[in-house]
Amino acid sequence: MPANSRFAVAVHILALMAQSEDEPIKSDKMASSVNTNPVVIRRIMCALAGAKLVTSQTGANGGSKLAQKPGQITLLDVYHAIEGGSIFALHRQSPSRHCIVGSHIKPVLGSVLEEVNLEIERALAKTTIEQVLHIIQARARGQKRN
Amino acid sequence: MPANSRFAVAVHILALMAQSEDEPIKSDKMASSVNTNPVVIRRIMCALAGAKLVTSQTGANGGSKLAQKPGQITLLDVYHAIEGGSIFALHRQSPSRHCIVGSHIKPVLGSVLEEVNLEIERALAKTTIEQVLHIIQARARGQKRN
Repeated sequence: MPANSRFAVAVHILALMAQSEDEPIKSDKMASSVNTNPVVIRRIMCALAGAKLVTSQTGANGGSKLAQKPGQITLLDVYHAIEGGSIFALHRQSPSRHCIVGSHIKPVLGSVLEEVNLEIERALAKTTIEQVLHIIQARARGQKRN
Repeated sequence: MPANSRFAVAVHILALMAQSEDEPIKSDKMASSVNTNPVVIRRIMCALAGAKLVTSQTGANGGSKLAQKPGQITLLDVYHAIEGGSIFALHRQSPSRHCIVGSHIKPVLGSVLEEVNLEIERALAKTTIEQVLHIIQARARGQKRN
């Protein structure tokens, strides 16, 4: 649950691929835009490819591009691809059945956390990669004008 | 961001302390209810004490109890004590300023994630430890009746 930046980096490189449309991008170029090591990018690309959000081709003209339209990829899809599972999890072990709290905590906390996880999913599902790219492009145009 | 069960265990032991009211509980007893190692409990207790949610006293009659009323401790307080910071974080490094996406991704994603983090906080702030304990006690009474 501790905050890490893999999700932010994944959104960044998906926005790059959305911007470049059908032109594949190499992981070195993405790494230079993110300002990180290409190994970090390749690991994240692996997770995104596993979720069928991107496709890659090898060779001199190789690189990666989106496997879906950017308007179809929500931040929730990115989250599921990168982190998998729910944000809030229950105990891994079974608590004691000899105590009232131990006997009932899992179903009780489970239904509370299910609601929290649903709120998070709803919030993430609202925004697509296309929207992120459009806001970025609008900001860039605004800056150019000033 | 990957789900872990420290948060669930923290809610479990806070519910135990809420149930026992002014009677301090030893970490061994909490560990037995959670069904985990006392070291895990002591580490979580340390974080809860740092956030002033619990107090501990040493000695033969020592143990820990809530430092606030259970109706005042929300799941958001527990989350902040255990995990600190926001759930979704931005890039640690500064992206390239030579590319449109790199130049603008941080403020754009920042405002999207701020909203997601706020939704999560709102959802967690809705439930208190007292409410968790009451639901557990109601379930236990219901089971006894059947």
